[in-house]
This record gives sequence, C-alpha cells and structure tokens, in this order.
Amino acid sequence: MRLVKTIRELKQELEPIRRSGVTVGFVPTMGYLHEGHLSLMRKSVEECGFTVVSIFVNPTQFGPGEDYDRYPRDLERDLSMCESVGVDLVFAPGVSEMYEPDACTRVTVSGLTQNLCGRSRPGHFDGVTTVVCKLFNMVRPDRAYFGQKDAQQVAVVRRMVRDLNIPVEVREMPTVREPDGLAMSSRNVYLSPDQRRAALSLHRSLRTAADMIEKGERSAAKIRERMIDIILSSGLAELDYVEIVDADSLRNIDTLKGEVLIAVAVKFGQTRLIDNIKVVVH
Amino acid sequence: MRLVKTIRELKQELEPIRRSGVTVGFVPTMGYLHEGHLSLMRKSVEECGFTVVSIFVNPTQFGPGEDYDRYPRDLERDLSMCESVGVDLVFAPGVSEMYEPDACTRVTVSGLTQNLCGRSRPGHFDGVTTVVCKLFNMVRPDRAYFGQKDAQQVAVVRRMVRDLNIPVEVREMPTVREPDGLAMSSRNVYLSPDQRRAALSLHRSLRTAADMIEKGERSAAKIRERMIDIILSSGLAELDYVEIVDADSLRNIDTLKGEVLIAVAVKFGQTRLIDNIKVVVH
Repeated sequence: MRLVKTIRELKQELEPIRRSGVTVGFVPTMGYLHEGHLSLMRKSVEECGFTVVSIFVNPTQFGPGEDYDRYPRDLERDLSMCESVGVDLVFAPGVSEMYEPDACTRVTVSGLTQNLCGRSRPGHFDGVTTVVCKLFNMVRPDRAYFGQKDAQQVAVVRRMVRDLNIPVEVREMPTVREPDGLAMSSRNVYLSPDQRRAALSLHRSLRTAADMIEKGERSAAKIRERMIDIILSSGLAELDYVEIVDADSLRNIDTLKGEVLIAVAVKFGQTRLIDNIKVVVH
Repeated sequence: MRLVKTIRELKQELEPIRRSGVTVGFVPTMGYLHEGHLSLMRKSVEECGFTVVSIFVNPTQFGPGEDYDRYPRDLERDLSMCESVGVDLVFAPGVSEMYEPDACTRVTVSGLTQNLCGRSRPGHFDGVTTVVCKLFNMVRPDRAYFGQKDAQQVAVVRRMVRDLNIPVEVREMPTVREPDGLAMSSRNVYLSPDQRRAALSLHRSLRTAADMIEKGERSAAKIRERMIDIILSSGLAELDYVEIVDADSLRNIDTLKGEVLIAVAVKFGQTRLIDNIKVVVH
C-alpha cells in the first residue's frame, strides 16, 4: 500500500493505473476509521481493481463552534486499518495542499440541503460537495463508496454527481453498528459511559419506528412523537431533529409512502450524533 | 465530422478516442460562430488529436430581460464552419438534455465575479461556471480553448479549474477583430449601421489607453476619463463600465502595474458589447 500526501504524487500514482484500464474505487473519509469505513473499503476492493482512500479532515464542512479542532485523528492507526483490508493507495493531504489561500469556488446543492442536517449546520454541505467534487477530480474514480449513516450526504453527493455530470458511480452501503445497535461514528469516542448508554435511544427509536410501520402506522406525526419520547426519556439527550422525509427529495412527508428516510440528530453534551433508517412503504 | 445531440452518444463517441490516448481539445460555444470561434477551433485542431465543439445557448447564464430568446442561432451554418476547420465532433444538446427539471447544483466562483460583467449581470457567471463544469465532465478534454474577448469569463473558468482541480488545461486565445477593429461577437448582428459605426469607439478607446500607457501614463483615473470621453462622443453609447483592473484578481487598481486588464462594456440600443485589452506595465 502506498501513502501520498500531495496531488502531484497522487496523479503520478494513478496515471499508469488509469492507462491500464483497471476500475478505480474510491472511499473519501475524514480518518479515525472504524468498521463502517472498512466495510466501504472492503466493498471497493471486492468490486474494483484499485482502491484509493482519502483521509482529510475538511475544515470547510465544519461550522464555527463545531468540533474541527478536536476531531479525532490517528493516521498511523488509519493506515494499518487500510492496509489490512487491501487498500492500494491512501491520499492524506494537508489543508494547504487542498485549498489555495485565495480559493473562491464553491459547489452548492441547494435543493436537498435546506432540511435535516442542512438546517442545523448551515454551510456544511457546501463544504462537503466542494471537497468531494475536488477529490473526484483528483482521483477520477469509476466508483465512490459512501455510508448510509450520512444519508443526506449521500443524497446530496448523488445529486451533485447527476447535475454536474460527474462520471462516477455513487455506491451507498449499509450503516455498520456496534453489537448493541449504536451506529459506528468517529465521534462516538467523545461519549462518556452515561452518554454512550443514552445514545442507544437513537437506534431504539428507529427500530420502534420500523415496528410501527410494519404494524401499519402511516402517520409521520405519530411515529415522530413516539421516537421523540424514546430519545428524550434517555435523559441526557438534547434533540436536534427527528424527521420523516421522502428518501429522494428529502422533503418532509405527512403520510408514509414509497421510499422513506427516517433520520435523527441528537446532542449528548457537546457530541452530535446522527442515525437513520430507510423503509419502503407500500 | 460527427454531430451528436445526447450525452449518451457523446460518451459513446469519445470512449474509444480516450482509450486510444489521443489528446482531446474542446471549444465550448453558444453557436452562431464567427472567426473568433474558428480561431479557437483551428488552434485545437493544430494542438490536439481530436477536437470537440459544443454548441449550446445556455439559458442559465442569461438574466431576466436579457437576450436569451432572440440570441442568434443557425446550426446548419455552424456545422459547415466547424467542418471547414477540421473539427471532429460537434455536441449540440437541447436544454432538457443538459438540465434535469429538478437540477439544483451550482458552481460559484465568488472572488472574481463581483466586478465588471459580474456587477451588471448578477448570476451570469454562476450559469457559465456551472455549464462549463458540466461540459468538462462530459467531454473530459485535455485542453479547452476560450477567447480573450470574454476576459472575465476566462479568468473565472481558470479559477474554477484550479479550485476544483479539474484536470484540463485552459488556453486563452487573442480576440479576433473585424478589419476596422470591432471585436467579433455573435451579438454584432443586432447592430444597426449607425450603432455599428458607434461601436468602433470601444476599440478606439482601448487603443487610446494603450497609447497613453506606452507614453508613460500610469493613472487609471486619467486613462478611464479619456476612454469614457471617446465612447460617449460616439453618440449612441450607453456606458455600462470602463474598468482598469489587475488581470489576475480582477480588482480595480489606481496605478497601473504588472499585468493589467482594461475592459469596457457598452450598450448600443438593446445590444450590449464588451471588449478589452491586456497590457503588461513595468
């Protein structure tokens, strides 16, 4: 496995790969890898001849007062995890390699970013789409792998790819969970033991929603009410949102129908966690 | 020469070209071609193994009340002009082929679009950068050719390419002029004979500016004053702007130094014309 830190080296490494016609898979990450990331890498290694992973904590997708500075970082550990699953190339640039001092170009997906995390993290998705567009142009992958845990992110990246005609196939892989149901996240390390226990209410609320739907409930209001009860009864939770939206447009719906995304965002102390499920309702 | 109207056909035509390793040159246009466009195509044919021209009057770069509907169009004539200079492939999509009904992604270059045409045509450059980004992703050219007549457009596209790491070389070619000095433009056909005569004041004002600089003048205010005099004395001109800016940042300067862009925009009746020169001042 090769590690490169500059765009120039990245291009040098990728040129012969591309010329050989091998399929390139790409997993963009902010590092501090966990099983969720590894599942994306394994899929890429399985499906593609060459797998590139980027590790870059992107400052432009953090708002003021968010956790950019204290976001966990451990490159050594990340590299050995990448190597263990057969990644071919890791791209780990510094901030000044990624952004010129007078950079002034932004990619904005306006339609899907008003709701959910877009509402509580203004500017966040502009940071995401701009850096992902840059990385796609650097790596020029055939396929890129994203986790369903960040469902809105995948929807927004998918829309950008379609609208800008970026020649990449976006693959969305299932959320990987701890044995007790907590969705894997680099931010889970922030949690105290009490918060860690309270955080299980996210998954519990989503499972309850799935049960209600299976039993025939179609009212978004009733499902949300029950979910909010479960989350708040965990004691330590400060609710950001519990939303039931159309999985494609991300617009709120009153009555469940078609592919539905049920998404939650909750703060435990300083730590903001998100989780979701998708359900197809007939 | 091949003509294609869909993205699917475009990709089919380009795939074997790309695989063969031939250099692809690209000239994006809004059609109604003139010698300025042809000079770009000739350069591409000279420098690249395969030349693609797009012909697309892009609605998103026209503001309300601008000339989108009456912008001149003549595909038959355009095609024979392309063929005459050795273009290999023309891509002439319709609006619905280029934009999905729910398209919501925008590429914005904020730094260089506040001044000059950006000031009088709000949103114009978002339309330009978004469509050029899309076309670059469809064609994936090695080199793209733009005319200096749209100097701000070239600067903005160049900045987008740099900031988004788009793997294309942007080539800027000199403005092509009529024998009497009028810069070639598809919009020149709008001009009445009187307006056509008055429009010569643009080039005359720029030549006068170049003379003043050669004779030692370094004050932007004095040069602008003389240029405005010349343009207004033509009688029919409604001034939009006469600006002297740094050629890279496009910011106004008081004292001429380094590479300087002198740019004018003037309306003659409903017809808005632009022109410019670049001067290196020691």
